[in-house]
Amino acid sequence: MIAFDPTPEQDALRQRIETFVMEQIVPFEKDPRCASHGPTEELRIELNALAREAGLFAPQVPKEWGGMGLDHVSMAIAFEASGLSPLGPTAMHCAAPDEGNMNLLHKVATEAQKQRWLKPFAAGEFRSCFSMTEPWGAGSDPSEMKTKAHYDGDDFVVSGLKWLITGAQGAGFTIIFCDVEAEGDKPGGPTMLISDMDAEGITLTRQLDTLDSSFTGGHWEVTFDNLAIPAENVLGKVGEGFRYVQVRLAPARLTHCMRWLGGAVRAQGIALDYARKREAFGKPIGLHGEIGAMLAENEMELQQCRLMVWWVCALLDKGERGRHESSMVKTAVSEALFRVADRCVQVLGGMGVTGDTVVEQIFRETRAFRIYDGPSEVHKWAISRRMMKG
Amino acid sequence: MIAFDPTPEQDALRQRIETFVMEQIVPFEKDPRCASHGPTEELRIELNALAREAGLFAPQVPKEWGGMGLDHVSMAIAFEASGLSPLGPTAMHCAAPDEGNMNLLHKVATEAQKQRWLKPFAAGEFRSCFSMTEPWGAGSDPSEMKTKAHYDGDDFVVSGLKWLITGAQGAGFTIIFCDVEAEGDKPGGPTMLISDMDAEGITLTRQLDTLDSSFTGGHWEVTFDNLAIPAENVLGKVGEGFRYVQVRLAPARLTHCMRWLGGAVRAQGIALDYARKREAFGKPIGLHGEIGAMLAENEMELQQCRLMVWWVCALLDKGERGRHESSMVKTAVSEALFRVADRCVQVLGGMGVTGDTVVEQIFRETRAFRIYDGPSEVHKWAISRRMMKG
Amino acid sequence: MIAFDPTPEQDALRQRIETFVMEQIVPFEKDPRCASHGPTEELRIELNALAREAGLFAPQVPKEWGGMGLDHVSMAIAFEASGLSPLGPTAMHCAAPDEGNMNLLHKVATEAQKQRWLKPFAAGEFRSCFSMTEPWGAGSDPSEMKTKAHYDGDDFVVSGLKWLITGAQGAGFTIIFCDVEAEGDKPGGPTMLISDMDAEGITLTRQLDTLDSSFTGGHWEVTFDNLAIPAENVLGKVGEGFRYVQVRLAPARLTHCMRWLGGAVRAQGIALDYARKREAFGKPIGLHGEIGAMLAENEMELQQCRLMVWWVCALLDKGERGRHESSMVKTAVSEALFRVADRCVQVLGGMGVTGDTVVEQIFRETRAFRIYDGPSEVHKWAISRRMMKG
Amino acid sequence: MIAFDPTPEQDALRQRIETFVMEQIVPFEKDPRCASHGPTEELRIELNALAREAGLFAPQVPKEWGGMGLDHVSMAIAFEASGLSPLGPTAMHCAAPDEGNMNLLHKVATEAQKQRWLKPFAAGEFRSCFSMTEPWGAGSDPSEMKTKAHYDGDDFVVSGLKWLITGAQGAGFTIIFCDVEAEGDKPGGPTMLISDMDAEGITLTRQLDTLDSSFTGGHWEVTFDNLAIPAENVLGKVGEGFRYVQVRLAPARLTHCMRWLGGAVRAQGIALDYARKREAFGKPIGLHGEIGAMLAENEMELQQCRLMVWWVCALLDKGERGRHESSMVKTAVSEALFRVADRCVQVLGGMGVTGDTVVEQIFRETRAFRIYDGPSEVHKWAISRRMMKG
Repeated sequence: MIAFDPTPEQDALRQRIETFVMEQIVPFEKDPRCASHGPTEELRIELNALAREAGLFAPQVPKEWGGMGLDHVSMAIAFEASGLSPLGPTAMHCAAPDEGNMNLLHKVATEAQKQRWLKPFAAGEFRSCFSMTEPWGAGSDPSEMKTKAHYDGDDFVVSGLKWLITGAQGAGFTIIFCDVEAEGDKPGGPTMLISDMDAEGITLTRQLDTLDSSFTGGHWEVTFDNLAIPAENVLGKVGEGFRYVQVRLAPARLTHCMRWLGGAVRAQGIALDYARKREAFGKPIGLHGEIGAMLAENEMELQQCRLMVWWVCALLDKGERGRHESSMVKTAVSEALFRVADRCVQVLGGMGVTGDTVVEQIFRETRAFRIYDGPSEVHKWAISRRMMKG
Repeated sequence: MIAFDPTPEQDALRQRIETFVMEQIVPFEKDPRCASHGPTEELRIELNALAREAGLFAPQVPKEWGGMGLDHVSMAIAFEASGLSPLGPTAMHCAAPDEGNMNLLHKVATEAQKQRWLKPFAAGEFRSCFSMTEPWGAGSDPSEMKTKAHYDGDDFVVSGLKWLITGAQGAGFTIIFCDVEAEGDKPGGPTMLISDMDAEGITLTRQLDTLDSSFTGGHWEVTFDNLAIPAENVLGKVGEGFRYVQVRLAPARLTHCMRWLGGAVRAQGIALDYARKREAFGKPIGLHGEIGAMLAENEMELQQCRLMVWWVCALLDKGERGRHESSMVKTAVSEALFRVADRCVQVLGGMGVTGDTVVEQIFRETRAFRIYDGPSEVHKWAISRRMMKG
Repeated sequence: MIAFDPTPEQDALRQRIETFVMEQIVPFEKDPRCASHGPTEELRIELNALAREAGLFAPQVPKEWGGMGLDHVSMAIAFEASGLSPLGPTAMHCAAPDEGNMNLLHKVATEAQKQRWLKPFAAGEFRSCFSMTEPWGAGSDPSEMKTKAHYDGDDFVVSGLKWLITGAQGAGFTIIFCDVEAEGDKPGGPTMLISDMDAEGITLTRQLDTLDSSFTGGHWEVTFDNLAIPAENVLGKVGEGFRYVQVRLAPARLTHCMRWLGGAVRAQGIALDYARKREAFGKPIGLHGEIGAMLAENEMELQQCRLMVWWVCALLDKGERGRHESSMVKTAVSEALFRVADRCVQVLGGMGVTGDTVVEQIFRETRAFRIYDGPSEVHKWAISRRMMKG
Repeated sequence: MIAFDPTPEQDALRQRIETFVMEQIVPFEKDPRCASHGPTEELRIELNALAREAGLFAPQVPKEWGGMGLDHVSMAIAFEASGLSPLGPTAMHCAAPDEGNMNLLHKVATEAQKQRWLKPFAAGEFRSCFSMTEPWGAGSDPSEMKTKAHYDGDDFVVSGLKWLITGAQGAGFTIIFCDVEAEGDKPGGPTMLISDMDAEGITLTRQLDTLDSSFTGGHWEVTFDNLAIPAENVLGKVGEGFRYVQVRLAPARLTHCMRWLGGAVRAQGIALDYARKREAFGKPIGLHGEIGAMLAENEMELQQCRLMVWWVCALLDKGERGRHESSMVKTAVSEALFRVADRCVQVLGGMGVTGDTVVEQIFRETRAFRIYDGPSEVHKWAISRRMMKG
């Protein structure tokens, strides 16, 4: 059937999260520990404690690892609410890249790997990072990957330069996407390897300044210099790296959409409130036609985004991979949320370009979202390629 | 719950309609009886017969009057399929303005009125028209209405000029929206009256040339000159006209969206097919980046439209009025479908501006849709007004 | 220097043309001889007579052939004024494709060819057509050309199918773009040949229905079946066809921009006038914010278009080819004029979709313009290719 | 006449500035003294020295005060070149708000005021600020102004809160826009008063965090608390403040356009360079259709912006006020430059959201520009109001 009614459980969860975020997390947005490179680790731990106390920690984590085991549609509802503050997902331990990494470990890791990394990670003892993107390639087109690994017996030695690695500083471990050189009958190809971050051979070379500022630990250039990784740290199988990228990708795209949808909803609320209170030329500015039109366009686009997210979540909940559909949703939603945030800035006028409201940050975050996890142009190219095949 | 799976019955109906329209109706698109003012009455009757034969006549009509009694979500699925050809809704007797008028009569008319008009009308014995819009007003802003009625005993006498009256030529009856002058203790105000079209005092003054060309009977300027209407022809109550406008409006907006969504889906299919076959600079044009991007944008927007329509249909099926939401959907969908059709024209290049494919007509139809039932600007203004009230 | 002041002569000419078009030509817009395939030949001749009488016939034609010998900047001013009515360029004999053909003959034809064709043609004794575009190719990508010629002694025999040939019906002669098969030491390659239209072997196979309706003679599918063309009818040299396409192209693109700029200016005037007179919700609709915004956006875009056209005209007047720049202007202007026309339709509301004002036609014309002389996508592709080369 | 050829002097000046900015100023973009609140005063002084040495200091200043006395068209050419780096205008002492304040003082101040403030100011001894905007009003709609002055004998006492005051920190003086209370026969009304910034009664209450980061001194909330201003510090006449706003406004809008046009040109250059070097899916990304299309759209929009700016500059050079036209240009150019910068970010992909290129900053600057000096919506409203009056 076709229906749009959250279950009572979903509604209750949404309300609890909304209240939690708006009352307990939003006040931290002015905390000096939120700087241009994201919240500090100290603040992250403090916010995590609040979420744990509220019973809202890591809702996406399977029950066996201490979470709520939400399906994708429920996640859509919960994560949108979490995203009302850029700090919400951090507090609830459902921010990128951790959330995607938990999902990937849950689906692909061995039991031993799960015990070693997933269990304490899901509990918030540390964060993680995902070392895939490289400068000048291996972003949109992973075939350009230059980070290489060779065998050392059954173990691996990795060298290369990764870039835009979110959350690298302070992470407990990283998943490294690299190209393993085959040796004898030992297989090669694109592979995911796990490494503790304090291993010798990992250097955080440089912190990048970026438009966005919501990710704990910021974005880094990370150098792997003869990093030794034992055989038991292969995630899944050697040579299957691209398959795991896909496993991680579709849900990770969607959760980005969910969280930033919440951000855009918040921005719209602030803009609407301002449009009611601020007067110009004798009436509230929201009653001036073009401002009103922008608010209405936002209202329509937010609902479209929500429906698109729900649609693909329902697909995933039925066991489909949703590769094409999640690509469509990521593209449509990121572009739409940016338009929404952009209009909110404009409604706020001078106020909109200042940090006096969180709209300014949400504008920057949604701008970056149009590029993270694949720029819209690459998605559209991939979507149309599939369509052309029929 | 949240779900996006048509029922087996809905799927089967969709398939039957798709097959019917593509196989039996599409060939008539080149029929000379489809001219710039829409299909002729003769062709309408011929197509109706085909739909009856296929068991697909008037699917939206309550079972008691001979239809399938579909709920709104089922209508969304059925009407989208019907719209694959601009002639589909005509054939299936679910085109505007008839479909909205059947709905209005069903909800508001007396039993006697239903027997007299709804019964033969639902059976396709004649068409109808809805006389609301006036030149220079009473379109977007009904308070400007200049068509007046006064009492003659308990009966009414109507005078005024209506404009853009769709399907007036060949209609069996019309619903007239006019302003009744109160007299003594007899009430006045905006009122809907029913009249046979062959009544003395109704003149089809002028046929309008319009961008679109799918409506049987075209669009007319209609003059009421001391038109006598007996008391029993009041639809509902005197003075309640605006309420009935609303009763008619929300579903009528949605069915427009459904039908033209089907049209845009058809256009996209033609464009994609062309993009696969037509080569330029050494490869199919759909593999050229910007053409591919347009096809992908269409794919995303079509799905967004479908979800928006389903969402409000589900609201209506729960008994809500959906005034705000249907206004959002009408605006978002009409604008999006036009963009889709416009991109299809562009993909087709020179072919796109010719009548050699139906895309050219669909482009014109969707352009007009951005204005019919309220221009987008008026909707956005109304949406934002409601938002400002909170 | 940088300056934006038309000379007194240019201003005077503009005023004369504006007055002529608005007073003498606009009334013919409702003439029944303006149908969906453009004005009839009879009407064309009647309008030509008016322009001759007003001393405004063929202003772009060199003085030696009876015109005013305007430079490109002056043409920009004159043609914009002519375009205030879709019939203006027809009346003044500066419409496409004739205007471009005169230019091409003037630049490339032999003296004998000029005497035979250019002289009576410039005088309006007959019209012409340009047989280049083919279905499924040879439009945007001329290398796909399938119309072939072979030698018959020193003469040629041409066979092939051309399509979207504007003005074919009633034309006196055509310039045919075809691929000559080399023979012995006789050269081959893309070539332009001239033929009288009444020659044996030319058939007007089919008239196309198109979105636009301003071109006398409409658009045709034209079949060449062993069409014999004598050696003296080669335009320029065999094998140099592409070079002449370029000679014709840059100015022809610009004159399209000029004429349709005039059309958009006219549409804006009608929309503004309506926005002042039509009231809704208690005030003229132009004082409602979003309508006002659309009028303002039009005002800005029209001026941008005018400046872009002037800029490239000044380049051409300095003797530059302006291939890159004219491609930029064609793309930017056609897209902008369409947006302007589209907004005008929207401002007019229901009136905008009817033929009661010429805005409806201008909307259709500017839609087609985004494709004629190369769709915007092809131009952007070519522009960026050149940029990539640096 | 209509012409687009800079004079040899203009060309030479442009080249000198381009070379100066690209070679001497661009290296400072990575200087740690460029922080989120703009370059420090120390850096400003250092850059000023370089510009003085290069003979490029304060080109807009009249010769009598030590500058080059450029007309507006020459300024357009010079300022565009200066804007190639966000630091260029700072270096050349032609940045906002100083440049507008110099212009205002030059046009309105008394000789004594000029000697006291304009002379050392034009020489770069100190900067200035313009105290107009207030929170919740007096931005787009100056009638909402809440900063008041009353007479104290012939002198004035000013109290109020100003906001978004650019460059307040480190400024030598400020021009204050306030509402003087009439007293007896002493006039009242909107008035501009000059005050040294170190006067008692001026407090920099709070520095605002903003999207942009190019203005020396950043943006401040400034409190005036019984600030005493002697009678001789009235700029022009009491009650004429709005007139001086207009005197300052049209050129100030234009110079914003010029400088940021240079910024967008720089961004496009970086994007094009990247599009040539970065490969994906087997070829430079600029040869992928949609990326190429974005580069081409930028090319077109940049040229449109340049022409629009030149057009109004030429108007001002003829002595016209250009109020309507400068409003059109500010709106069209700010919106276009933002689109250009946004596309450049997108072309750069992940690189685009980092501070590794200046594109990220230019994106933020052009975003703010759509609001500074009046949001686009306010301009469009004003433009259409004037159009409606006819």
